[in-house]
Amino acid sequence: MIKIGILGYGNLGKGVECAVKEADDMELTAVFTRRDPDALTIQTPGVPVVNTAEAADWKDKIDVMILCGGSATDLPQQTPEYAKYFNVIDSFDTHAKIPQHFAAVDAAAKESGHTAIISVGWDPGMFSLSRVYANAILPDGKDYTFWGKGVSQGHSDAIRRIKGVKNAKQYTIPVESALEAVRSGANPELTTRDKHERECFVVLEEGADAAYVENEIKTMPNYFSDYNTTVHFISEEELEKNHSEMAHGGFVIRSGKTGMNKEHNHIIEYSLKLDSNPEFTTSVLVAYARAAKRLADEGVTGCKTVLDIAPAYLCKQSGEELRKQLL
Amino acid sequence: MIKIGILGYGNLGKGVECAVKEADDMELTAVFTRRDPDALTIQTPGVPVVNTAEAADWKDKIDVMILCGGSATDLPQQTPEYAKYFNVIDSFDTHAKIPQHFAAVDAAAKESGHTAIISVGWDPGMFSLSRVYANAILPDGKDYTFWGKGVSQGHSDAIRRIKGVKNAKQYTIPVESALEAVRSGANPELTTRDKHERECFVVLEEGADAAYVENEIKTMPNYFSDYNTTVHFISEEELEKNHSEMAHGGFVIRSGKTGMNKEHNHIIEYSLKLDSNPEFTTSVLVAYARAAKRLADEGVTGCKTVLDIAPAYLCKQSGEELRKQLL
Repeated sequence: MIKIGILGYGNLGKGVECAVKEADDMELTAVFTRRDPDALTIQTPGVPVVNTAEAADWKDKIDVMILCGGSATDLPQQTPEYAKYFNVIDSFDTHAKIPQHFAAVDAAAKESGHTAIISVGWDPGMFSLSRVYANAILPDGKDYTFWGKGVSQGHSDAIRRIKGVKNAKQYTIPVESALEAVRSGANPELTTRDKHERECFVVLEEGADAAYVENEIKTMPNYFSDYNTTVHFISEEELEKNHSEMAHGGFVIRSGKTGMNKEHNHIIEYSLKLDSNPEFTTSVLVAYARAAKRLADEGVTGCKTVLDIAPAYLCKQSGEELRKQLL
Repeated sequence: MIKIGILGYGNLGKGVECAVKEADDMELTAVFTRRDPDALTIQTPGVPVVNTAEAADWKDKIDVMILCGGSATDLPQQTPEYAKYFNVIDSFDTHAKIPQHFAAVDAAAKESGHTAIISVGWDPGMFSLSRVYANAILPDGKDYTFWGKGVSQGHSDAIRRIKGVKNAKQYTIPVESALEAVRSGANPELTTRDKHERECFVVLEEGADAAYVENEIKTMPNYFSDYNTTVHFISEEELEKNHSEMAHGGFVIRSGKTGMNKEHNHIIEYSLKLDSNPEFTTSVLVAYARAAKRLADEGVTGCKTVLDIAPAYLCKQSGEELRKQLL
């Protein structure tokens, strides 16, 4: 049995808990929290909840520590820190900062002799894999990534920072006609506005100026001004009732040409339709935790990403079984 | 530059030639043929055409030999044979016989100290990867593979063996309503008949009995009797004009559940829409030839499949570039 530790018990931590329960070659050893452990009730009976201050005491009892913090401030500090004591895996998703996060985690994991895997999830993660495979196969082509329909946390937060806004949810929605143009093999040049639209559900504070809020949203640079944006004002009850789900998804498409005269076109499409963004992300994390254990058993140290790991390492089946059943 | 040899110059051999031309880290060193080399004109100027009898003389001049024969009789003999002299890669696609082909190639490659990769293409190949990743991520789920629309060589051959048939092409077509049911997350139980239909274009010999031929097709066990099958009788000219293309494609879908009470459903879909089946297959082969060279350089010997190879090995970019650009 692979012994799993969870560090951080928010949406991701709870998702890992569900996915580990489903994996019959794994067991949840402990949940680590920065909060008071006595105040935290988890869903798996009999599993200890431990304060992070005592985490290092568990270093010989856990095969892989799954770090479930956020990418903004938690993981840049936590992943290198816990790589001193554990094989670690995280879902760091700030694309632009991956090189520096990789370097920090790699140094810590090499120093301590552990295996680390970063940026595991669906983007980065499964979408990255799709891009890499498709680029390797069709070097003469063009990549398209579409996200949604799903709530973007960053954009929802940006709306909530506007004066007069009590609460908000923002959906990123891929534009269907753009998807169709890409699938046709036409290799269209698409602007930001062509690819996605943004739909916002906003709860105003009492007496707030709706016209002001709508204008602040639609003209916000980077977040909204380059998109067709729709704003709906609704009640807190309606937001709670209709916009609490964590569905998400998206599409990675590569369109490329082959042939002596580039006469043949090919479309490779990978898509996800997810009822729960955090539970899917953590299902990917748990599969790669299995890989982390195998790599550690082989004596591999330092930082890896999904691009460095052979697919068979994610599976509990043997190579022989995989060749027979799934190849 | 990675030095590539092509063995067999049919549709696959020609496809490899195109894909190698596109790869700026590779060069085509020689084409090997069982035919008279003087009678064979290839598309790349200055590349020698050599009889297979002399192939062993080239063992130090070629990094990876790409075997472009058929799975029925060529590859079971050729891949183990040429693994004695070269790092080899093939597109062996008889799923049921992969374990025995793997064993034969593995023994030969280990004995001679070479790297071999078998069953590279899209199914087996990219579709296998999709199945393995999706199974690892969503252990509680169901797999669906649909093929088409595209010509099935095996089914076309089966029709051509019927008395009175001069020529034939058979299209495998996924049933749209079945695809939609799978994408809805309903996890339907689908029979063979539910998933695919078969459309046949048949040229009769002069004086042949159309009713007899149609009945022979529709009642043929394994090939047609379990499917809704349509038969069209057309002229040789029409077959040549409208049914010579080599388009193909298909869909791999996994639908699976997560959550403490399995309350969330997820759909992972991978699809291909290919203008040229052989050119796409060979584009995959050439990407894995790059991996074969790297594995050989690392001293890895024996037989591998796409499941054993980390995605980064297919790319000419460094790990650093991949993390920055595609992760």
